[in-house]
Amino acid sequence: MSNRNYAIVGTGALGGFYGARLQQAGLEVNFLLRSDYDYVKEHGLIVESPEGDFTLPHVRAYHDAHKMPQCDVVIVALKTTQNHLLPKILPPLLKDNGAVLVLQNGLNTEPEVAKIVGAERVVGGLCFLCSYKVGPGHICHLDYGTITLGEYAQDYKAIGITNRMHQIAKDFKRAHIPIKMSEDLLLSRWKKLVWNIPYNGLSVVLDARTDELMANPDTLILVKEMMGEVVAGAKSCDRIIPDDFIPQMLEYTQKMKPYRTSMKIDYDESRPLEVEAIFGNPIRVAQQAGIKLPQIEVLYRMLKFVDVQRQEAERTRRLLGLH
Amino acid sequence: MSNRNYAIVGTGALGGFYGARLQQAGLEVNFLLRSDYDYVKEHGLIVESPEGDFTLPHVRAYHDAHKMPQCDVVIVALKTTQNHLLPKILPPLLKDNGAVLVLQNGLNTEPEVAKIVGAERVVGGLCFLCSYKVGPGHICHLDYGTITLGEYAQDYKAIGITNRMHQIAKDFKRAHIPIKMSEDLLLSRWKKLVWNIPYNGLSVVLDARTDELMANPDTLILVKEMMGEVVAGAKSCDRIIPDDFIPQMLEYTQKMKPYRTSMKIDYDESRPLEVEAIFGNPIRVAQQAGIKLPQIEVLYRMLKFVDVQRQEAERTRRLLGLH
Repeated sequence: MSNRNYAIVGTGALGGFYGARLQQAGLEVNFLLRSDYDYVKEHGLIVESPEGDFTLPHVRAYHDAHKMPQCDVVIVALKTTQNHLLPKILPPLLKDNGAVLVLQNGLNTEPEVAKIVGAERVVGGLCFLCSYKVGPGHICHLDYGTITLGEYAQDYKAIGITNRMHQIAKDFKRAHIPIKMSEDLLLSRWKKLVWNIPYNGLSVVLDARTDELMANPDTLILVKEMMGEVVAGAKSCDRIIPDDFIPQMLEYTQKMKPYRTSMKIDYDESRPLEVEAIFGNPIRVAQQAGIKLPQIEVLYRMLKFVDVQRQEAERTRRLLGLH
Repeated sequence: MSNRNYAIVGTGALGGFYGARLQQAGLEVNFLLRSDYDYVKEHGLIVESPEGDFTLPHVRAYHDAHKMPQCDVVIVALKTTQNHLLPKILPPLLKDNGAVLVLQNGLNTEPEVAKIVGAERVVGGLCFLCSYKVGPGHICHLDYGTITLGEYAQDYKAIGITNRMHQIAKDFKRAHIPIKMSEDLLLSRWKKLVWNIPYNGLSVVLDARTDELMANPDTLILVKEMMGEVVAGAKSCDRIIPDDFIPQMLEYTQKMKPYRTSMKIDYDESRPLEVEAIFGNPIRVAQQAGIKLPQIEVLYRMLKFVDVQRQEAERTRRLLGLH
């Protein structure tokens, strides 16, 4: 039995799900919460899942990182729009030889975390998970759940599979969380963007599900062309995504049940969009290597526009006390 | 007094306005109508305008081009989405030495008309007009109204200012319609696209007025970049739009009152969008010269998507008898 203890920073649909699984498997998990703190402190967590529902009546809930025990593995499961909070949260929470596992979308969040805790203490993880928060402490897991782990090193240098990855993977496997290992975190991140950039972006701007984007010949062309730009972005970082990857992603999406992307869910719920992590950072990384991604840039700037409009409307609604 | 007689093909907010002005000035004008035929036949036309309201209780209204007298000048004022009707309408309507004046948006409508009546009988016109149809035969003119005339020749070859242009201009000036003359129709069309492409497209996709597009830093960048692509498209046709033209257009738009673009009005009214004339044709013309316009293409395909979705919803609404 592992004696590693865990912290979950951001106990939402993703952090809550994985944290609950780890605790259920007998590990010590400390949950950092904000709005749901009181509720979860009293009632614990409920997870509904096709793999079996379960309840954790008691969890170690905190609303202040300084009051939490230091942990071996600190899982960052916040939306990237909240990353400005990390410099205050992470340092007191991490054991001297501990690691931060960044389970976030997009590109370049690991370097941000590395600036706070040091590159040698950062591991990246890509989640393929469909889950949502029904209410405080109540998570509904719909489908998938695999995490791809990858060791981070300065400038995303690929350093293969480390002991630390094996240790974390062991704990996750015990919690019935499927784990893959990546020898090259940056390549894995770009590969995930091949899906995330076109579908997340177009679904928000065009108010469309994945099946609608696939069925229309024009949006299908846009999806393919933007996937091609992501491949070009990866190449600008010397990461080669194989030629058959785009056709695979298209076929995979064609076979999926109609899906509302995570960014579309955020938009519909009036939450801030992860525009910089998923769009802005890849564009800037490619640009620094002299490569323009003009079609992704259109999507990026359109998303920033609708994000600002939506957040302003939301602020007005709150000021007026409307719901 | 000119003895030229006129036909107006498409008596809407544009054709109805200019036709009414010409008739008011004493010219013979024959109006082709479809849905508004019965009403206009009985009640004539009403024009409200800041330059003076006026009523024409009797107009020469037709709903069949074959029953109309042959005319010296046939003005095509249909939306380009209706251009499939022209091969049946134009031949019987045009005098042997008559001309077709194409008052439509976008690019490459003159060559389409030339295929029907011969290039030597086509004149182009670019309208800078804000007007809308209040109801059958009832037009509200809001602002502007200048027409830029340009002679068409095979492949948009620039052939300067012709006698025919002077004759038409004379009739229009008598009707108090401001006229400019272009020595190069294709250059004029590309210049108009510098404004029409970004503002029409972005206003529909982002549900925004011109002032909102100008106030947001990201959409302002998109507007500028897409204007740059239009300039590149013009250059692919050996037409040089001067460097100060984009800053002029931006300043002009900044100073305009908040404006709902004509394509946004079409969209809000569930009418088909002029996507091919304004977006598809310029993209294809540039592509034939080996120049890609990637950001305009994103807008083009997004517009085709929303256009199809809207038209399908509209058909469903009609089938269900809803309003």
